[in-house]
Amino acid sequence: MNASVLRSACGGLRTHSLRPGGRVGGWPRRCPPPGQRFANGRCVARTWSSAGGGGADSLPAANFRKQPHARHKWDHDRSAREVVQSTKEKVAALQRKNPTVQPLLAIVQAGEDDELLEASKEITGKIELNVTQICLSEECTEDEIVEEVLRLNEDCRVHGIYLHLPPAFLTSRVLNALKPEKDVEGVTDVNVGSLVRGDSSKGFVPPTASAILDLLEKHDAHFEGKTVLVVGEGPLGLVLLALMERNGMVALKSTWSSRSHLQRQMMQADVVVLTGAEGISVPRSWFRPGAAVIRCAPTIVTDDRHSLDMTSTSDMGHLIAAYRARNIVHSYSRWLQEQQYQPWRLRNLKLQPLTPVPSDIEISRAQAPKPVVQLAEEIGLLSEELEPYGRSKGKVKLSLLERLHTQPNGKYVLVAGITPTPLGEGKSTVTIGLVQALSAHLKLNSFGCLRQPSQGPTFGVKGGAAGGGYAQVIPMEEFNLHLTGDIHAITAANNLVAAAIDARMLHEATQSDKALFNRLVPTLNGVRRFSPIQISRLRRLGIDKTDPAALTPQEVSSFVRLDLDPSKITWQRVVDTNDRFLRKITVGQASTEKGQIRETGFDIAVASEIMAILALTDSLADMRNRLARMVVGTSRSGRPVTAEDLGVSGALAVLMKDAIKPTLMQTLEGTPVFVHAGPFANIAHGNSSVLADKLALKLVGRDGFVVTEAGFGADIGMEKFFNIKCRASGLRPSVVVLVATVRALKMHGGGPNVSAGAPLPKEYIDENLSLVTGGCYSNLRKQIQIAHLFGVPVVVALNVFKTDTEAEVDLVCRLAKECGASDAVPCHHWAKGGQGCVALAKAVDRAARAPSNFQFLYDAEMPIVEKIRTIAQKVYGAEDIELSSEAKAKTDYYTQQGYGSLPICMAKTHLSLSHMPDKKGAPTGFVLPIRDVRASVGAGFIYPLVGTMSTMPGLPTRPCFYDIDLDPVTEEITGLF
Amino acid sequence: MNASVLRSACGGLRTHSLRPGGRVGGWPRRCPPPGQRFANGRCVARTWSSAGGGGADSLPAANFRKQPHARHKWDHDRSAREVVQSTKEKVAALQRKNPTVQPLLAIVQAGEDDELLEASKEITGKIELNVTQICLSEECTEDEIVEEVLRLNEDCRVHGIYLHLPPAFLTSRVLNALKPEKDVEGVTDVNVGSLVRGDSSKGFVPPTASAILDLLEKHDAHFEGKTVLVVGEGPLGLVLLALMERNGMVALKSTWSSRSHLQRQMMQADVVVLTGAEGISVPRSWFRPGAAVIRCAPTIVTDDRHSLDMTSTSDMGHLIAAYRARNIVHSYSRWLQEQQYQPWRLRNLKLQPLTPVPSDIEISRAQAPKPVVQLAEEIGLLSEELEPYGRSKGKVKLSLLERLHTQPNGKYVLVAGITPTPLGEGKSTVTIGLVQALSAHLKLNSFGCLRQPSQGPTFGVKGGAAGGGYAQVIPMEEFNLHLTGDIHAITAANNLVAAAIDARMLHEATQSDKALFNRLVPTLNGVRRFSPIQISRLRRLGIDKTDPAALTPQEVSSFVRLDLDPSKITWQRVVDTNDRFLRKITVGQASTEKGQIRETGFDIAVASEIMAILALTDSLADMRNRLARMVVGTSRSGRPVTAEDLGVSGALAVLMKDAIKPTLMQTLEGTPVFVHAGPFANIAHGNSSVLADKLALKLVGRDGFVVTEAGFGADIGMEKFFNIKCRASGLRPSVVVLVATVRALKMHGGGPNVSAGAPLPKEYIDENLSLVTGGCYSNLRKQIQIAHLFGVPVVVALNVFKTDTEAEVDLVCRLAKECGASDAVPCHHWAKGGQGCVALAKAVDRAARAPSNFQFLYDAEMPIVEKIRTIAQKVYGAEDIELSSEAKAKTDYYTQQGYGSLPICMAKTHLSLSHMPDKKGAPTGFVLPIRDVRASVGAGFIYPLVGTMSTMPGLPTRPCFYDIDLDPVTEEITGLF
Repeated sequence: MNASVLRSACGGLRTHSLRPGGRVGGWPRRCPPPGQRFANGRCVARTWSSAGGGGADSLPAANFRKQPHARHKWDHDRSAREVVQSTKEKVAALQRKNPTVQPLLAIVQAGEDDELLEASKEITGKIELNVTQICLSEECTEDEIVEEVLRLNEDCRVHGIYLHLPPAFLTSRVLNALKPEKDVEGVTDVNVGSLVRGDSSKGFVPPTASAILDLLEKHDAHFEGKTVLVVGEGPLGLVLLALMERNGMVALKSTWSSRSHLQRQMMQADVVVLTGAEGISVPRSWFRPGAAVIRCAPTIVTDDRHSLDMTSTSDMGHLIAAYRARNIVHSYSRWLQEQQYQPWRLRNLKLQPLTPVPSDIEISRAQAPKPVVQLAEEIGLLSEELEPYGRSKGKVKLSLLERLHTQPNGKYVLVAGITPTPLGEGKSTVTIGLVQALSAHLKLNSFGCLRQPSQGPTFGVKGGAAGGGYAQVIPMEEFNLHLTGDIHAITAANNLVAAAIDARMLHEATQSDKALFNRLVPTLNGVRRFSPIQISRLRRLGIDKTDPAALTPQEVSSFVRLDLDPSKITWQRVVDTNDRFLRKITVGQASTEKGQIRETGFDIAVASEIMAILALTDSLADMRNRLARMVVGTSRSGRPVTAEDLGVSGALAVLMKDAIKPTLMQTLEGTPVFVHAGPFANIAHGNSSVLADKLALKLVGRDGFVVTEAGFGADIGMEKFFNIKCRASGLRPSVVVLVATVRALKMHGGGPNVSAGAPLPKEYIDENLSLVTGGCYSNLRKQIQIAHLFGVPVVVALNVFKTDTEAEVDLVCRLAKECGASDAVPCHHWAKGGQGCVALAKAVDRAARAPSNFQFLYDAEMPIVEKIRTIAQKVYGAEDIELSSEAKAKTDYYTQQGYGSLPICMAKTHLSLSHMPDKKGAPTGFVLPIRDVRASVGAGFIYPLVGTMSTMPGLPTRPCFYDIDLDPVTEEITGLF
Repeated sequence: MNASVLRSACGGLRTHSLRPGGRVGGWPRRCPPPGQRFANGRCVARTWSSAGGGGADSLPAANFRKQPHARHKWDHDRSAREVVQSTKEKVAALQRKNPTVQPLLAIVQAGEDDELLEASKEITGKIELNVTQICLSEECTEDEIVEEVLRLNEDCRVHGIYLHLPPAFLTSRVLNALKPEKDVEGVTDVNVGSLVRGDSSKGFVPPTASAILDLLEKHDAHFEGKTVLVVGEGPLGLVLLALMERNGMVALKSTWSSRSHLQRQMMQADVVVLTGAEGISVPRSWFRPGAAVIRCAPTIVTDDRHSLDMTSTSDMGHLIAAYRARNIVHSYSRWLQEQQYQPWRLRNLKLQPLTPVPSDIEISRAQAPKPVVQLAEEIGLLSEELEPYGRSKGKVKLSLLERLHTQPNGKYVLVAGITPTPLGEGKSTVTIGLVQALSAHLKLNSFGCLRQPSQGPTFGVKGGAAGGGYAQVIPMEEFNLHLTGDIHAITAANNLVAAAIDARMLHEATQSDKALFNRLVPTLNGVRRFSPIQISRLRRLGIDKTDPAALTPQEVSSFVRLDLDPSKITWQRVVDTNDRFLRKITVGQASTEKGQIRETGFDIAVASEIMAILALTDSLADMRNRLARMVVGTSRSGRPVTAEDLGVSGALAVLMKDAIKPTLMQTLEGTPVFVHAGPFANIAHGNSSVLADKLALKLVGRDGFVVTEAGFGADIGMEKFFNIKCRASGLRPSVVVLVATVRALKMHGGGPNVSAGAPLPKEYIDENLSLVTGGCYSNLRKQIQIAHLFGVPVVVALNVFKTDTEAEVDLVCRLAKECGASDAVPCHHWAKGGQGCVALAKAVDRAARAPSNFQFLYDAEMPIVEKIRTIAQKVYGAEDIELSSEAKAKTDYYTQQGYGSLPICMAKTHLSLSHMPDKKGAPTGFVLPIRDVRASVGAGFIYPLVGTMSTMPGLPTRPCFYDIDLDPVTEEITGLF
């Protein structure tokens, strides 16, 4: 029988919100019992057991209930009231701050409620705690109990679990199935052990123990210096003893086993606490005159009501219940606390940088990453929010955004660069070095958000993208290979669309309207029905019918025929391989495709529009809608045909449901990194995902930092980050870090060509201050000015190479500030890790405190051409733009189709501010040619093409893969980079 | 500073094998101390502390060492000797059985060895335990200690961890970082808690506590009925008290805090155990005459040697060390025990089958899978052997094979089928139902090993492949979608080969020998060197040189030119999508490819040879070699060109390094399943992986079962399972389960055509015993006979449909036995889960006990044509075979190239025993035409083509994806099946 059935069998899962005035009656329902006086005026609690009857030699089992107002010194009632009151106030205070989360106790019981449970619920009602009761059958198995406990452990709404089960059910396995954080009874080994060891910072004191200590503490007589004797076997006595010792009481512990010793002990004790003493009769003469006695039992013994005074036991029940409730509230409060901003307690991985710096893979492999579950815990993720993928990476669930939605965002830092040389200037390493410095050295919560690289270049020419030197994401081979399969999911989704397009064209070409309709809307069990996705197509066609039989032949025809124009299909297939021979192909040449051949091509997977969608979406629902909106081509009548028209959008969402969750990894110093999405930086916007940034901003909290990177130079990556990504996300950047190198500055200052593979000219090796000056006053200044267009402060990070001289470094820093940077600092992360970026981290922290007046460069409602012109003139420094006739026609078409208010994503070379790769510095006076204009409607941008963009790299004669191998014994990868 | 550096700073990681005669001296190095007599003849152990000096009122700190042979009653020496002796014997006994695994203690220390450590090492030396010392610096941080502890936790060679650190270092965080299973000091909360709670089944008793109990037990005086007083704060006293109470001693506990109470307690005690009493002076007069006293301290106090009797403390040190060693050996023994066969303690998920049976996805979703980490633990995996991928699936490391290599294999059961109708007869559901019955109902360890389905058909026509009804693998959506990315890895690897082929042809076509050589063997830092993969190509070319400069121009040319004949490239690209338009395409049509166009095509990903390799490989090294051997085409001179020639084989192994690990999932009843590999069943062998079977056979152990499935009918899937898979793996099957349905039997008995989509003719709905009889005597009998050709017993499983009548069911079971089946039973797993397969499970268990005389059908060394003929005649019932001229030529070519001894993988229709799909029953007298013969050299088989095989399915007009969607709120998939 599974749990849900059990629940229904005994009344289902009951969740009560026990508020005053609710179903719970007045409290306490029984009057407090009177005291029993002894010679010295001390009071004995009426928790006395006397199996031998109330003879003269035993404590009398008087009917205390009849004297409800007698004075006594064990005041359970007052104690319980005080605990209830203070706990209630605490709940109210917490609830004011956190109205959406309620404290919740889960009770697992076998059978119906008993008296003890009623007492507990009475108290929770007073305190206004919610209660969930899981009623298992009285014959339930250990497995069933464990299953329920595990389920409750995982349920983050539950703050405490109370196993109200017969003792025989409370096996070690059952008790230890409880998550210690929810063990409000303090019964798990972890909890008992931590109390005995004297560490009560994390665990819970068993409510019974708390109740006893409370009674002792509030007793009229002061027990200071007096002896407390705890009698009884079992863990409760030992825990009590430990707590008493820690409270400075003179505590003794004895067992029931030897009566003669016990008598002597009892005679000498000022206070006696009897535990687990059901059925044992102790002669009254054993107690010294005036001794105080507490008898507590873990359960109410209902059977001996007649011969025993049970009132007191019941009183103890209320007090215990009050302490149980306090434990739940403590757990609730702790849970809320964990949701709040707090500096992480990161276990940093120590770096000992070597000189010379070893290869990236050697550095990566020498550092053992923390288990990702540990990292997740350190940064405040709940265990159910992480889906580990192996040991060192995992996906983070989006539900986190909901849980932390009241948390303020951290500071948002963008790393951009000046116009680079073809060798790259190290934006990724700066990004990683900066978060290493912030997290591991300045102890400020911070997250790096990086793009996932394509596997194509990994085996082609580029090598890895996980940073480099002592600023890397580890394990770098996992970063560079399949990771958690997001790009593979994109490939699968993209190619399902492609297969659907061609198959649909074939079916339309070879079937009548009627045959198509019969197949598309088949009769199942005598009923013919449109699927939801088909209804949605009918709506777009303006057909407001839901009965397939009601469609006119004309409507049937327009419904079944997408009528795609083969020459106007814009959807390409993708692979994540550098396969140049797929750039232009002819498909459909098998005889089975009946001559429906057409030319098309493959792009590299990261160029898929689905990748751009993944990077820009902010939820599952939004992704589903974007995928549906994707335009795959145009019908012969000029109507855009979407993925929704193909009926494939739900399947795409299903294929992408895991890819939408960012992947958590770590830097070489053990600080957290999200790796998520990696769209092309020319035909798409080249930024990692909105969702990763959003999750990270919540996780770092108020004083933390999220550092992300934009592809290419600031004129491209940063402009798109602001105008496209920030527009989509609503997030506002605090600081731009602009990465420069002496090498690139010299190039912009007039140095000779730099090209990959060729040796560097000597200008780049020897000191040359005038070239540096030229570069600073041209490209660096211009890129700083671009950032200022958006109102964001700039910190220049000079990525120092070993050939850079001190004079060059000083010059760059001085001129950068002169050109408007808030600060400019040299960085040595590649050789030194986070330590080499501490100055940058401090500068960023300072800049982030300055006010930022972020604004978009253009209003999205401006005409497409005006938006393009604005970017060209203000960002690139162009005189004007010039559209080809095709570009003009497309602009008109997109405007007419309602895509006119999408932002612009320029596809321009990254090697110059202009469209001419060899124009370095800050060119002016040129006219930017717009060859063509395309739209990624699902991703949500228009992309004008300035020149030809390759979307499929090729393999060189000797690709990287020649050196890559696997050691079959150690499983280590060799030669990756 | 990281740990490796710390280690080198203080002498490195020392692993001693402390054997007698080694570096450790004689033991005990100090003579045992003499006794100290009291009035009643009892002896006080010399563990006495007297800060006030040895005055008349204190116990005398006599120099016991000078009287080494005096009688005494605390005989530490004898006790230690006994513990050492018994522990040593236990180690020896365990080592005889497990010579490869040695017990290992890890000591984490700060600074150099001290006296206590020397004592411990002396003892471990005696017992012949291995010791690893981790020497941290004396200034090490908490993080560094925790890091070491976590590393040792994960190291399965370490059986116990002893933190020999100053008390200030032993924070809660450090102590609780220890894995309780390795906490031989018993200091973690879990260990302390379980002792206090009274559960000592799993934890470790702290060696000090064991030593004290031992001394008390072996004392000359019998303490039965006498009072033991434990004095002192801290967890040791409480743990001692708990243990004493459990041992039936009359134990009392007191603290040092109140001297006056203490004195009274002491006077009354027969035995006093003083813990943590350094520096406290207790007057001798406090003890009752003749009382026995043990003073133990957690550390040796070396400073007060002069005023105190330290001999006794040191003696206690040896005894404690002996108990520590015993704990390690206990841990070692427990670890070995866990490696042995034992019935699993599976927490089964209960099923409550509903009528009518809901949809597959509804059933799957209603059952919450166990966390895969829990399942893994239940079946005996170590935590480091599982790589979770999300919550409910994970990859299992191959290192398991090494760990369990001495474990006997379980029984190996193959599920095959009679020749099916186009609707399928339910082999997968029988496989899953059978393991549910074996594991969850008969409580026999058992594993299902299944194929991973292609994602193509999931979105095309077929739907899921995770079983069905109440016999499913859950979560079924994860099973059917990306799973753990293995197919994506295959796609990436396959297409990297394809890209490498075309790029290489382009580069060879456009470059001179010299240019190619310069690029393939570039000069780096002035040196030109071949890579290992290039050396291996040179060897294959017969060039025995390693210096690039030494090659002749002729050798350079043959090295740099693969000279692939474009018309003889057999390598196809793949996608995991039903994309029919890619069946035949032309590539290289972009101008950048310079006219190197050629015709080629895409297959579905699971048709890749790399999938067949994944299914047949047995290790990483073997997979690497098979990938290297794959033949991608033929050179113009007729030489086979391999992946190794392309230089890509190492990269392929890297891409496949995670895919080689099987994925662990579970059935609806919580029993384990491996999902791994899913090669095509016609052009490949259609069986799940050898590695999954091997791992599963070790995990289930001696009396367990591994059930796996072969694609198509027994004539294809089973024949290939035996001749190809078992030949590759060396595994021997115990039983064949042959799945039949009344429907298929009627078809073979002469019933009308059955086809997908069309309604079933009435013969299949109404009772028809004569058609059933016909089917049994033709196809069923023949398939049973085929299994008997291999010497394996057959159990027929009749998959009962609700239209089957009792008479039909009885008839099938009767005739099946008549036709040679060991047994034949009806199965109701679809409607009832494992419960519905209990009869089958029992029949399989019985059949598995019968002797199996497995033999291959043919000797691999037979000529290719003879092997094909043997299969055609003996298995299919053909008269003979007839090879086309192309097939003949290929056969000769493969024989000449040395592939003649590969086994045969027939590519034949599965709808008939013959090559003619409409010939049902058991056709005879036909000649099997062999149209073509191909080779998968890496996978290791020759595949003759009988007719045309489609390796790329298409999408129908209304593919499955129309109904598939995702609920963005619940994240639940709808309409998947």
